[in-house]
Amino acid sequence: MIDRIAIFGMGLLGTSTGLALRAAGFRGSIIGWNRSPEGAATALKAGAIDSIVTDGLQAAREAQVIVLATPVFSILDWMEKLSGVLGPEHLVTDVGSTKGQITEMAGRLFNRRDRAAFLPGHPMAGKERGGADLGDADLYRGAVWLFTDDPTWERSKASSKLVEGWREWVAAMGSRTLDLDPGRHDELVAWVSHLPQFLSTALSALLQEQVGDAPELKDVGGRALREMTRLGSSPYSMWRDIAMTNTPAVERALFALEQRLAHLRENLRTPELRAEFEIANRFRRE
Amino acid sequence: MIDRIAIFGMGLLGTSTGLALRAAGFRGSIIGWNRSPEGAATALKAGAIDSIVTDGLQAAREAQVIVLATPVFSILDWMEKLSGVLGPEHLVTDVGSTKGQITEMAGRLFNRRDRAAFLPGHPMAGKERGGADLGDADLYRGAVWLFTDDPTWERSKASSKLVEGWREWVAAMGSRTLDLDPGRHDELVAWVSHLPQFLSTALSALLQEQVGDAPELKDVGGRALREMTRLGSSPYSMWRDIAMTNTPAVERALFALEQRLAHLRENLRTPELRAEFEIANRFRRE
Repeated sequence: MIDRIAIFGMGLLGTSTGLALRAAGFRGSIIGWNRSPEGAATALKAGAIDSIVTDGLQAAREAQVIVLATPVFSILDWMEKLSGVLGPEHLVTDVGSTKGQITEMAGRLFNRRDRAAFLPGHPMAGKERGGADLGDADLYRGAVWLFTDDPTWERSKASSKLVEGWREWVAAMGSRTLDLDPGRHDELVAWVSHLPQFLSTALSALLQEQVGDAPELKDVGGRALREMTRLGSSPYSMWRDIAMTNTPAVERALFALEQRLAHLRENLRTPELRAEFEIANRFRRE
Repeated sequence: MIDRIAIFGMGLLGTSTGLALRAAGFRGSIIGWNRSPEGAATALKAGAIDSIVTDGLQAAREAQVIVLATPVFSILDWMEKLSGVLGPEHLVTDVGSTKGQITEMAGRLFNRRDRAAFLPGHPMAGKERGGADLGDADLYRGAVWLFTDDPTWERSKASSKLVEGWREWVAAMGSRTLDLDPGRHDELVAWVSHLPQFLSTALSALLQEQVGDAPELKDVGGRALREMTRLGSSPYSMWRDIAMTNTPAVERALFALEQRLAHLRENLRTPELRAEFEIANRFRRE
């Protein structure tokens, strides 16, 4: 039923979405918009999109489903622009990492019988670097694709069908879907995604200052150190909007970890250390 | 020249040492001592040792090289016992994770012309779980094997040759050797090995309390979360002696990370976050 998709943002997620749709058997048209011509050309060459558009609004009008795959602030900008030109025969969805502000705007500007539908989405997949050249048809295989849909939204029959259709394509790309309240989503990802990222950044920055002048010493840490600092490669540009749109939840998670580290530090020589290891062991075992 | 080796402790490192020696072409005898008969039987069955001994002192007297592969406090106990029964025709070496106390005792009880040699060693290799059943002939391939040998120690000609011979076997097992001062060693591993471990334990314990009651939510984190919490599986028994014998260095590293996390938390919405990401990016790039 869906046969005209537009993807905005040909970074890692946007390009992978095009490739994964093709791998899952999508035969309709996929057009791509990107801020820089280079990323768009790479995505085109890889087969993630059929054609590049420069007029995003025109492209959106001609598509049934518009997938916003830019950073969060740019998603919010596009939502504002698109809400004025789309109608109840359209679905807009996104892959943004935080869902509070996006879902609030989706309720305010979309999701009425006479307007386009907006389905807020967030695939839990990524790499420590972005870019169209890393696009991967298997990126979403085995991942969890979160939605923060609101059951009270009233949509046109046409756009409701597009919502169902998009959920089916997400499953076809290999992801398991899970619906969450947007507040719960932002709290959850602060713990299981944003905290690990900011922690790896802090650890990498600290180690850079401690042993960065002696490259041979980095090898000493082995696999464990490589894993713990892999996310240290993530660029600021990917994380700025997340830090800005989920600040209180990330602050709470970071503060809780600081307290936990202090507790462990104060108990290196007491039986409390055993208790801490046993709780940690349970996290991996269960 | 070395053809009689005794390994004390058939855990992951001891068993892997036997297997790696065989894989590297060692044709002499390898005998094993272990606290529990089960681990010894597993190592024997795997081919890491030719025979099991229960009288460690007798076994040590009959070997040329004794490899202590038990936890650090047990290494210190064995050093004390062995120093009384071995002579200048023996080399004792170890694979313990901290080197300050071991190297101090090595200078006090070994390494004179009329005594056995002791070469303090530490292969930077491991897994998040221990045990003879995880023994791996390739564990040391590509790893760095640290030594905290002291150039002022005077050794017999026979035991000096054994030291040279052991270093050659370490290279044959696939490790690159690196000599460090013991204080520098303990400081370095506090940053690149112990800090990542205690951090992963703290993060895993915190997440267990936050999302441990909702197992489906653990999947949400994906690969990044799995990597950051892999070491959370490490058992207390492997880390207790490390926490006890490298306390000040580990405390300093943990405290520095707490400060760094607080700094990042206070700057989630300022340009300072960019600076922190850029320093972290350098750690992985250089």
